[in-house]
Amino acid sequence: MAATVPFNFLRFPFSTNAANNEEAAAKTAAVNADSGAPTIFDKIINKEIPSSVVYEDEKVLAFRDINPEAPVHVLIIPKFRDGLTELAKAEARHGEILGQLLYAAKIVAEKEGILDGFRVVINSGPAGCQSVYHLHLHVLGGRQMKWPPG
Amino acid sequence: MAATVPFNFLRFPFSTNAANNEEAAAKTAAVNADSGAPTIFDKIINKEIPSSVVYEDEKVLAFRDINPEAPVHVLIIPKFRDGLTELAKAEARHGEILGQLLYAAKIVAEKEGILDGFRVVINSGPAGCQSVYHLHLHVLGGRQMKWPPG
Repeated sequence: MAATVPFNFLRFPFSTNAANNEEAAAKTAAVNADSGAPTIFDKIINKEIPSSVVYEDEKVLAFRDINPEAPVHVLIIPKFRDGLTELAKAEARHGEILGQLLYAAKIVAEKEGILDGFRVVINSGPAGCQSVYHLHLHVLGGRQMKWPPG
Repeated sequence: MAATVPFNFLRFPFSTNAANNEEAAAKTAAVNADSGAPTIFDKIINKEIPSSVVYEDEKVLAFRDINPEAPVHVLIIPKFRDGLTELAKAEARHGEILGQLLYAAKIVAEKEGILDGFRVVINSGPAGCQSVYHLHLHVLGGRQMKWPPG
């Protein structure tokens, strides 16, 4: 039945109250932050876990966040992690995929009809509230975004 | 005199009413959102207006936000706007500079000593809370970032 386990169950494996709480997930993740181990995103990339795909090409995959914080909330990830567990690990050689990810955010915004206003967020490390150690961009829109950004 | 008043006179040092309010600035900016006109950032790039530069290379400039929302709050911009008034205007040809900007966020985080945890935010359009129509990345850190991101 593993293939049917919801994404967020695996993100809160020790939680008894499935709070819609990225901060809690980030704290749990931080226990083994950036261990380099496979993450839930590998299973999403391999389609072992279903996701609602918004956009996909050879290099990147975009799918809906299971805990949306806005009417549109999509995650964009590199299919090949290549050491990019977090943005803090980026090296000059990653420039091309970083550009592809950011350009994909525009494509996603266009597909989702929020090109007139959206926000891209990247969390890096525990203090950044990162919950999955596979670089990912959040694309949020469909409502007025507030300031400060968390 | 409208043309000579900096868009964000409320945000800059000349202000007596230093409302720390990106949303207000975004609403003001939205009146002429993405007109393609020069912005305050052109003057910062040309050093006509002083800024606290954190990092600079041929392509990008990083300087401290005058209204910080975290102990570290740096803006990263392309020196040559090249149509990138906002992320919504990105085209495939912008991939290289987009990658350079995102990689610069890592460099800035490293220089600022927040590589262990930080957040990158890009606002696009009025609903995204964009206040200056020259693509810019916010790098925030030095405190625990919260969720949702605004």
